[in-house]
Amino acid sequence: MIAKTPEPPYWAVIFSAVQSGKDMAAYEGKAMRMVELAHQQPGFLGYETAQAEGSGEITICYWETEANIRAWKQNTEHLEAQRMGREVWYSSYHIRIVKVERAYGF
Amino acid sequence: MIAKTPEPPYWAVIFSAVQSGKDMAAYEGKAMRMVELAHQQPGFLGYETAQAEGSGEITICYWETEANIRAWKQNTEHLEAQRMGREVWYSSYHIRIVKVERAYGF
Repeated sequence: MIAKTPEPPYWAVIFSAVQSGKDMAAYEGKAMRMVELAHQQPGFLGYETAQAEGSGEITICYWETEANIRAWKQNTEHLEAQRMGREVWYSSYHIRIVKVERAYGF
Repeated sequence: MIAKTPEPPYWAVIFSAVQSGKDMAAYEGKAMRMVELAHQQPGFLGYETAQAEGSGEITICYWETEANIRAWKQNTEHLEAQRMGREVWYSSYHIRIVKVERAYGF
């Protein structure tokens, strides 16, 4: 569950959302497809996802560079998923583009 | 569930962990206390938390500055909670200190 990422600096997208509960079968299929597709993108380092109370979701994708994040955002299949996310699957979301400056663990 | 944060830049701590399952009653009480205590610290902006498969946890705390994060890490009661986390409550964790560069949502 904990993504194996390199030494900082690298980048991440924190996606915090509330799911609408609509059309969830299609949502789950698309979510799996987006994970598969992200793995094929340049600079993809890994991801972590978790469910919060009240249909909440936190998903974090890690990337080598900010340019990798911009390229992924413009991926055609991903653009379609983003549109469906806004129109159907999510009642709200917030996206934060962050630079990982330090990291440690055990 | 989505933290209301100001316009970037600001900072965050991404805490990704696998819970050990040990002593969970004490863990939950301490987790609630840490949220309460964090709210009293200078620069605290909010937090988001969610549960992943296999006893996973993602918790993100947002802060005005990196100095706020360093000060919180050294809080006496928090230091004790960190020690218990390493020794009892978590089988592994990874902490990433990040700077939020851009954000948007709907």
